[in-house]
Amino acid sequence: MKLLFLGTGAGVPAKPRNVSSLALMLLEERNSIWLFDCGEATQHQILHTSLKPRKIEKIFITHLHGDHIFGLPGLLGSRSFQGGETELTIYGPKGIREYVEVSLRISQTHLKYPLSIIEIENGVIFEDEQFTIETLLLDHGIASYGYRIMEKDKKGTLDADRLLSEGIPPGPIYKLLKMGETVTLEDGRVINGINYLGPEIKGRVICVLGDTRPCENAVTLASCADVVIHEATFSADSDEMARNYFHSTTAQAARLALNAQADTLYLNHISSRYLKENWNQLTEEAKAIFPNTKMAYDFLETTIDTHKN
Amino acid sequence: MKLLFLGTGAGVPAKPRNVSSLALMLLEERNSIWLFDCGEATQHQILHTSLKPRKIEKIFITHLHGDHIFGLPGLLGSRSFQGGETELTIYGPKGIREYVEVSLRISQTHLKYPLSIIEIENGVIFEDEQFTIETLLLDHGIASYGYRIMEKDKKGTLDADRLLSEGIPPGPIYKLLKMGETVTLEDGRVINGINYLGPEIKGRVICVLGDTRPCENAVTLASCADVVIHEATFSADSDEMARNYFHSTTAQAARLALNAQADTLYLNHISSRYLKENWNQLTEEAKAIFPNTKMAYDFLETTIDTHKN
Ligand SMILES: [Zn+2]
Ligand SMILES: [Zn+2]
Repeated sequence: MKLLFLGTGAGVPAKPRNVSSLALMLLEERNSIWLFDCGEATQHQILHTSLKPRKIEKIFITHLHGDHIFGLPGLLGSRSFQGGETELTIYGPKGIREYVEVSLRISQTHLKYPLSIIEIENGVIFEDEQFTIETLLLDHGIASYGYRIMEKDKKGTLDADRLLSEGIPPGPIYKLLKMGETVTLEDGRVINGINYLGPEIKGRVICVLGDTRPCENAVTLASCADVVIHEATFSADSDEMARNYFHSTTAQAARLALNAQADTLYLNHISSRYLKENWNQLTEEAKAIFPNTKMAYDFLETTIDTHKN
Repeated sequence: MKLLFLGTGAGVPAKPRNVSSLALMLLEERNSIWLFDCGEATQHQILHTSLKPRKIEKIFITHLHGDHIFGLPGLLGSRSFQGGETELTIYGPKGIREYVEVSLRISQTHLKYPLSIIEIENGVIFEDEQFTIETLLLDHGIASYGYRIMEKDKKGTLDADRLLSEGIPPGPIYKLLKMGETVTLEDGRVINGINYLGPEIKGRVICVLGDTRPCENAVTLASCADVVIHEATFSADSDEMARNYFHSTTAQAARLALNAQADTLYLNHISSRYLKENWNQLTEEAKAIFPNTKMAYDFLETTIDTHKN
């Protein structure tokens, strides 16, 4: 599981930071990529990475502001042109369907793969055997959602040494025991797999928040997350401006991470008013409140390791 | 009058060539910029030039394929964000209004300048004291237009030396004579300005063609143009492929320029199947038919001089 930041700026593209997009690379987990937001020229950013558009399985849109969606029609078309044939699902606020459908229809873009568009509300929007994804509305004027991606816990490892020492030879039953099932041996012994499993490995939790003022739902979504990606459009001393524009400051992002007892915070969606030489100061403002803060930048790639017991 | 190519590739963006956009810089003529097509990331390309989005006065869309329009909503929004306040007019085929209006509405992009959208048909779509613009439908499956931009002829220069030698002193009447008017002097002489003007300076003609197969309307639009910008998606030996995809080859573009008796041809909209090392060959194919051929590339800037007498 890796994160690859594709666009970390706010509002309009600038040379040092493109508008919003973030890839959650699940290549080991499911050989696919999940994208969060798709600002203009996201597909151009992807040209400079190892990402294959045909591997993009899901695109989650936090909100409908242009800097988060204007790259969507182009990426959808190019994914088809470049041989993408597997289904793609877009999740986003009400309106995303009309935007995508009108853009594809007017441009006569004919996709060679099935496209699903799901307009979301608060709650669980996706669940399979690996992941559960939950969304809650934030506070951004326009409907803006945060996403909590929860990997399911994994069964502990089977203690093969102990099974061997108790005279239970390897074979198909090991697989059943590994799944925590109960097995009756030929000699009549009844073995419960659960007694031979190490502790469960807790799944990872990633929280990607759309543009927002500080709000309670953000804390809920970020609760005990391994990684929180939070906008920090403004510096710590710009509370009023942040409030007026429905955004957050570096310090507000840090307080969110602290209150949520998260592990790592990435500051994202940085206004182009801050030049490169100010970036360090912005990070320090947040670190003073939440030490494990990092600043996102375009093409930053980071691995989120599985938990160990 | 300058041309600045912003995107010269076909279909999908690639590292060496972005999707379509071309700026006609009329800074001396009217302190404004006219844009032809606006593929995704046109505003990103502009960041690497001296162009100011607020100076963009008109945007002409040749056709509604994604690689020609997906940069439009973002550019419109950024022009507003960056302080553009003067009116902007978009010309394009039927459908351009719905695309722009839906994109701006869904993204809640509120422009701080007046936006006009004119859905075009064959004929004169604009005329003022400087320019006339005419469009004709080409042959691209989807409605695709070519634009002929005609600068109006300018009056010749006033022969002040001759006026002086005939005892007519400089003054307000020179202005009238320069406009070709007839003036009665205090001594009773009647002077017709036309007799003191050099030959008219012919206006320049630029022809920007949308994607197309070879067709008669393209020749009409390009007739005796100073500069023709023509797509050359495929190489000279790919007639059948060009025909199937409603595009042109290098040789077809060259024959158009020859038949139209144009002065200079720019090959544009080059497929990314041709690598940098093939570009020279593509140009040579066209030059064999029309010697004054040049290949467009991203950020190529060229001056179109006024005619001399
Ligand atoms: Zn934003
Ligand atoms: Zn095209």
